[in-house]
Amino acid sequence: MSKMKTLQQYASEMYKIPVSLYKNNRLRLIERLEKATTVPDNSFVLLQGGCDENDYCSDNERLFRQESYFKWTFGVREPEFFGAIDLKQKKSILFAPRLPADYAIWMGKIQPLSHFKDVYGVDEIYYTDELKKVFREKNASLLYLLYGQNSDSKSFSKPAHFEGIEEFKVEKETLHKEITECRVFKSPEEIEIYRYTNKISAEAHKECMKACKPGMYEFQLESVFRHTCFVKGGLRLLSFTPIVGSGYNSATLHYGHAGAPNDKMIEDGDMMLLDMGGEYECYTSDQTISFPANGKFTEAQREVHGTVLAMRNAVEAAMKPGVTWFEMADLAYRVMCEHLLKFDFCRNGTVDDLMKVGMGKVFQPHGLGHLMGMNTHDVGGFNDGSKRSELYPALRSTRELKPGMIFTCEPGMYFIDHLLDAALANPEQAKYLNAEKVNRFRGFGGCRMEDDLVITETGAENLTHLPRTQEEIEEFMKH
Amino acid sequence: MSKMKTLQQYASEMYKIPVSLYKNNRLRLIERLEKATTVPDNSFVLLQGGCDENDYCSDNERLFRQESYFKWTFGVREPEFFGAIDLKQKKSILFAPRLPADYAIWMGKIQPLSHFKDVYGVDEIYYTDELKKVFREKNASLLYLLYGQNSDSKSFSKPAHFEGIEEFKVEKETLHKEITECRVFKSPEEIEIYRYTNKISAEAHKECMKACKPGMYEFQLESVFRHTCFVKGGLRLLSFTPIVGSGYNSATLHYGHAGAPNDKMIEDGDMMLLDMGGEYECYTSDQTISFPANGKFTEAQREVHGTVLAMRNAVEAAMKPGVTWFEMADLAYRVMCEHLLKFDFCRNGTVDDLMKVGMGKVFQPHGLGHLMGMNTHDVGGFNDGSKRSELYPALRSTRELKPGMIFTCEPGMYFIDHLLDAALANPEQAKYLNAEKVNRFRGFGGCRMEDDLVITETGAENLTHLPRTQEEIEEFMKH
Ligand SMILES: [Mn+2]
Ligand SMILES: [Mn+2]
Repeated sequence: MSKMKTLQQYASEMYKIPVSLYKNNRLRLIERLEKATTVPDNSFVLLQGGCDENDYCSDNERLFRQESYFKWTFGVREPEFFGAIDLKQKKSILFAPRLPADYAIWMGKIQPLSHFKDVYGVDEIYYTDELKKVFREKNASLLYLLYGQNSDSKSFSKPAHFEGIEEFKVEKETLHKEITECRVFKSPEEIEIYRYTNKISAEAHKECMKACKPGMYEFQLESVFRHTCFVKGGLRLLSFTPIVGSGYNSATLHYGHAGAPNDKMIEDGDMMLLDMGGEYECYTSDQTISFPANGKFTEAQREVHGTVLAMRNAVEAAMKPGVTWFEMADLAYRVMCEHLLKFDFCRNGTVDDLMKVGMGKVFQPHGLGHLMGMNTHDVGGFNDGSKRSELYPALRSTRELKPGMIFTCEPGMYFIDHLLDAALANPEQAKYLNAEKVNRFRGFGGCRMEDDLVITETGAENLTHLPRTQEEIEEFMKH
Repeated sequence: MSKMKTLQQYASEMYKIPVSLYKNNRLRLIERLEKATTVPDNSFVLLQGGCDENDYCSDNERLFRQESYFKWTFGVREPEFFGAIDLKQKKSILFAPRLPADYAIWMGKIQPLSHFKDVYGVDEIYYTDELKKVFREKNASLLYLLYGQNSDSKSFSKPAHFEGIEEFKVEKETLHKEITECRVFKSPEEIEIYRYTNKISAEAHKECMKACKPGMYEFQLESVFRHTCFVKGGLRLLSFTPIVGSGYNSATLHYGHAGAPNDKMIEDGDMMLLDMGGEYECYTSDQTISFPANGKFTEAQREVHGTVLAMRNAVEAAMKPGVTWFEMADLAYRVMCEHLLKFDFCRNGTVDDLMKVGMGKVFQPHGLGHLMGMNTHDVGGFNDGSKRSELYPALRSTRELKPGMIFTCEPGMYFIDHLLDAALANPEQAKYLNAEKVNRFRGFGGCRMEDDLVITETGAENLTHLPRTQEEIEEFMKH
């Protein structure tokens, strides 16, 4: 137990990202582009970083979070930057905003350009108002810009733009696919950071398990999580809005948003579902724990939790290079169906019968997991040309697993009125459902377990270390 | 001391805003509009609430924060709403987004329209796709839309827009000024919430004072603040990005942003400056404390802190209806100049001499304070036709103080190289400066004290209760 550590000790143990990580990312990108296309002399990758934004018409500046492609390539923390890579010379160039004199009063020391060159380890540095001039001087023959669709949001990335870019030849077909593929495969240095974000986030989840008591608001656990991530690990931002669902709320998959802000009071007997992860310099984590609010499983909770644990164990044992994420999803549903029969939620059929009518999706409507990286739902789910599954359309990837990928494995089981009603009204599914038992579980909520796993040469390394069995959870919550 | 309270006790004491508050706000707005203009029959105020947003091209949904004008008028927590007021009938109408069926799986129960009618206490409720239909049926003669400039950001508010609005007569001249003026004057129910945000934020600042130790990172105090606000008071959002400056960073007025993320290690002997405030349902707070990192003032710190305390005490004793904020700023600088002479930062002149050459602005370049409300730097600073001061251009208001206004009073004193260099190079100012002493303070950083005060009939009520004198601070930090 680390409870006696002082805040100074935590401060001394916080992770520092080596600047070589970004250099290596850029080299990986250059290599991929050279394989993918014929890179002309004097051609450049050009990326635009994120910009500052205010809340509506007010002067309240939002806390800036860097755009992920830009962050992956250059590591820059500050807004309003551009970055370029001279592909043949293998040289990196940053463009920093020219700051007004009163920046020094309000925002801090105006650093000389050399400061950013040192901090981010690039070869050259200029001001953003010199973009046109620099590319002219370098006789830029081609600018590779980022343009492509995100398979989760369906949004398109915004290609870099500066005044005068019209006079240069640009190309928007190649970069998005290749840099996305680079992001899919994590370098050893990157995996080290995911170990860190996972370690800190797991510590924060465990603090929540210890703090949880009936009579509290759900959001008080969100606060415990945020605080632990930040004060102990320096994770200022979380990867996504925390989900802290108690009782029936544990069946709302993305609970916790402003319209449902984790504001129910936790009751004795509630099942808890906490899906949260801290991020560090845009490197995310994504973990879910489920446990009884009062620390002791009921029989009903044992059945649901036991089903999900079996799904998790089966999938994580099977994850290795060569299998596809589609197969893993299928495996998870198969294990679920076994347990639906075992616990008499379903009857009068075999696992194959249940699989045939898609019974799994009634109880787990979301995908089994997703690529994770500098976005929680990371880019590249179908970047190898694979297709979204018609059978499991919620699945965010169907790809073949390969070393260096990080997948979340997050099986769940929920009792969602809307889906139960539909299944009971569908004769194909209803004939296998034990309506009496299923109806008894309405209002139960749900259960999910989520780990982050990096694919290795021979299997998968689970980065998420949390109490998972019912014995471990009950034992942990005694303290 | 409240340290033995459990999280359940905090949960049971959290504030609930009565829905009558928003009803009353709407009545105040109707009244003002009727005074300001000839309101025709079947005319409506129409406001559009804030929308959901993702980070860049990803599917990461940002935690939604409602637009302040909309929140003030309708209290709505959820994104994508519209709201209207039938001015003659004095009736309120909300328009809620029509949610897709799978919202129930991902985001929570799809509430019937009647739910929002009850929760927000409005007279009528429709879907946003019915806006045109509803205004047609009501024979809308005129829609008052929100359009006007924010005096702090210089940005313009975005008038409500829906498909088909072209067929209605709209008016954008009147509403912004009148609703802004309503926001300037806080109702008793609103003041009650500011008491609450101030109480919780002060408790959080005090936790920071207790937790502060050399060897910690500044941001660990940010985390303590955030956590205390949220876990004890339910303040999920802060009013602005926390400023936790130690040593020389305490002179960077808006330190803490992504480019300077409170990440210096606190050192023994540092002066600390923490400017943070929690918000509740968009009602903000804004408090600054300054104290020695090790709990014991040095002589240098005593002089700077003592100067700022004297400025604060003088202004807060003088704040009352009838005086102007310009006069208060002038008073603060006058007290500062007295102390510049007293502590020998300046010599060879009188207070009047120093005032004449604007010596105060060398040491306090920011305004004395600002209107506070549903934005930290609240709207309305010059809404009564007053003008930005040429003498003190950083001053966010010059208005006459009136009951119901909330002003922050935040005098400060800083040693900013950039400004000291300029003053020492300016013969007008240099002749009064004790260069040797001033130069000795370079790197000291600065000191600021910020309270939130509501103007009463006879004076001002300070909502911010914190240890302020050097004795109080040293005594408090012993524990
Ligand atoms: Mn996930
Ligand atoms: Mn302020």
